[in-house]
Amino acid sequence: MTGQFFAVIPAGGSGTRLWPVSRAKRPKFLLPLPGPRTMIQDTVDRLSGLACRENILVVTGAAHVSEVQRQLPELSADQIIAEPMPRGSGPAIGLGAAIALTRDPEAIVGSFAADHIVTERRHFEQAVRAAIEIARRDYLVTIGIEPSYAETGYGYIHAGAPLGTFEGLQAREVDRFKEKPDAEVAEEYVASGEYLWNASMFVWKARVLLDEMRTHLPELASALERIAADWDTPRQQETLNAIWPTVSDVTIDHGILEPSTHVAVVPATFGWTDLGDWHGLGTISADVSDPSANLAINAELLARDAQGSFVFGQGRLVALLGLQNVVVIDTDDALLICDRSRTQEVKQLVEELRERGSTTLL
Amino acid sequence: MTGQFFAVIPAGGSGTRLWPVSRAKRPKFLLPLPGPRTMIQDTVDRLSGLACRENILVVTGAAHVSEVQRQLPELSADQIIAEPMPRGSGPAIGLGAAIALTRDPEAIVGSFAADHIVTERRHFEQAVRAAIEIARRDYLVTIGIEPSYAETGYGYIHAGAPLGTFEGLQAREVDRFKEKPDAEVAEEYVASGEYLWNASMFVWKARVLLDEMRTHLPELASALERIAADWDTPRQQETLNAIWPTVSDVTIDHGILEPSTHVAVVPATFGWTDLGDWHGLGTISADVSDPSANLAINAELLARDAQGSFVFGQGRLVALLGLQNVVVIDTDDALLICDRSRTQEVKQLVEELRERGSTTLL
Repeated sequence: MTGQFFAVIPAGGSGTRLWPVSRAKRPKFLLPLPGPRTMIQDTVDRLSGLACRENILVVTGAAHVSEVQRQLPELSADQIIAEPMPRGSGPAIGLGAAIALTRDPEAIVGSFAADHIVTERRHFEQAVRAAIEIARRDYLVTIGIEPSYAETGYGYIHAGAPLGTFEGLQAREVDRFKEKPDAEVAEEYVASGEYLWNASMFVWKARVLLDEMRTHLPELASALERIAADWDTPRQQETLNAIWPTVSDVTIDHGILEPSTHVAVVPATFGWTDLGDWHGLGTISADVSDPSANLAINAELLARDAQGSFVFGQGRLVALLGLQNVVVIDTDDALLICDRSRTQEVKQLVEELRERGSTTLL
Repeated sequence: MTGQFFAVIPAGGSGTRLWPVSRAKRPKFLLPLPGPRTMIQDTVDRLSGLACRENILVVTGAAHVSEVQRQLPELSADQIIAEPMPRGSGPAIGLGAAIALTRDPEAIVGSFAADHIVTERRHFEQAVRAAIEIARRDYLVTIGIEPSYAETGYGYIHAGAPLGTFEGLQAREVDRFKEKPDAEVAEEYVASGEYLWNASMFVWKARVLLDEMRTHLPELASALERIAADWDTPRQQETLNAIWPTVSDVTIDHGILEPSTHVAVVPATFGWTDLGDWHGLGTISADVSDPSANLAINAELLARDAQGSFVFGQGRLVALLGLQNVVVIDTDDALLICDRSRTQEVKQLVEELRERGSTTLL
């Protein structure tokens, strides 16, 4: 059977802003956020209606392979690819495509980060199915999220000419990728109705991606071809170890999609976040009907004159008295209490901890 | 030898406002506040330069006897008196005096709560020595603390005519005991220089106390005499169990000192607090030179734009980001985070927890 759908899951990044739950040895994608399953487990679950189990590939750091295997017992060992060192998502996604191509010359590959949260799974599947149809026509396809507010922490996609309807969704050509905007520009984007959040979800034929890569990133293409040539042979890991350190850290958006002329976007409406910080997790998990309510995940909450707070616990009782808009993150060895508008600065807190010479808490 | 000094330590009360460290089974006096020793250990240590070890008596609830024995291995079992049920500090203090009287007809007895914090021990000893001298002259003596600010949570003593100098301290007759004042009255008291905090520290001859009691609280006096008659006999506990439930819960201040005409006060300047709430503990433990500094007891603190906060921990790292004047109390099974101006309301939080039907957390 040819033309199968493969799902590649790049599983990297540390998620420093989700400290103290996230640590160097327990990056975001291995954590139960929002729980009860871990982010990578949720990611695989979400893809199980789209790809055969054996067509799911995880690309992760060598240090995390055994934990990924433990969390995903349904995958066999050869579906979990150990990067000898981190090289960003571009090479990881390319490697997934190159491996899929060794198994199916007409393989369609979708790439889905291991540390994003998606709600409304039915809409997610619909968008991916639409993207697969468009990818069969040799497009590089992205899934863009219709923005619900003027977020400045995401990149945007400016949609161009209509490409027709697929699975009930109106696909568009991509006019341009935009970097994270400032607040004013983000407002303009959202008001125009022509911009989508870039969720870094991509779907394409493996062959088409590698052809485009040969044009725009020839060194990366050549490296991946050499790795793929030895894949499923006894030299597989040796070749990967030798070549991987030479590839450059480049994103697919910047390295291939921006220069390419054959890029489509599927506008989608499912709930999505890349879960950058604790405020974000509190928001996506909250009851939208009452934004002033307190939210507790894995904690019993006792509140007296306390509103708008978010507690992520480990089963203990958390009592809040006379406080508004705080974030409380409770772990075995560290406790974070933070004004909710300052959660981006958790990164600096961790930096300070590093400067103090802490090792176990990082 | 007669005329020895005995120290009675009434160890009762739950300290609900110090939840979640304080629990029904772990009342305030059994806790390491401010640490590292527990409050009752600190109390005994503080008296060790004044009373012989065998002349220290602890009166506590039956449920706490074994923990008190564990914490005070230097006391023998017969120095720890088990109240069959709580009857407040008045009967406990009277019982201590009645027992001391069985051992020494000229016994001087001092009474010191097990859950107060005293700093500047040398000044404390000086004040108690002065009180002992005055008590030898058949006065009922209280030690009053010169107020450092207009506290509304304490009762006050209005000092009367001078009685002379003892151990370098100017003793006064007591003109009147005053209930907890409102803020305005408290300001007047402090401004006048004539008022002292009532720290419920008393020194008297056991015989004098029991004589006054026979006048002002004859039923309590009679009950204590019957208990004392069987003390150190095989019927000791049986008699205590039979009579104790019949005595009334009355304070010594109200029941004896107010009607009595022979009361003296020793004005003292040592640091003292009855440690009513977490804000109080933070204040007495703080560096007075910088009130905006954060204070952490038994916790590593990582603060970023956080001031005036007090953390009482259990060894974990506590990170504060963008918060002012919060109290964080970290225990194994419950975490309290509270605006520092609201620590008196912890009592209501605990009440709410009780209404929820919690048992282990109370």
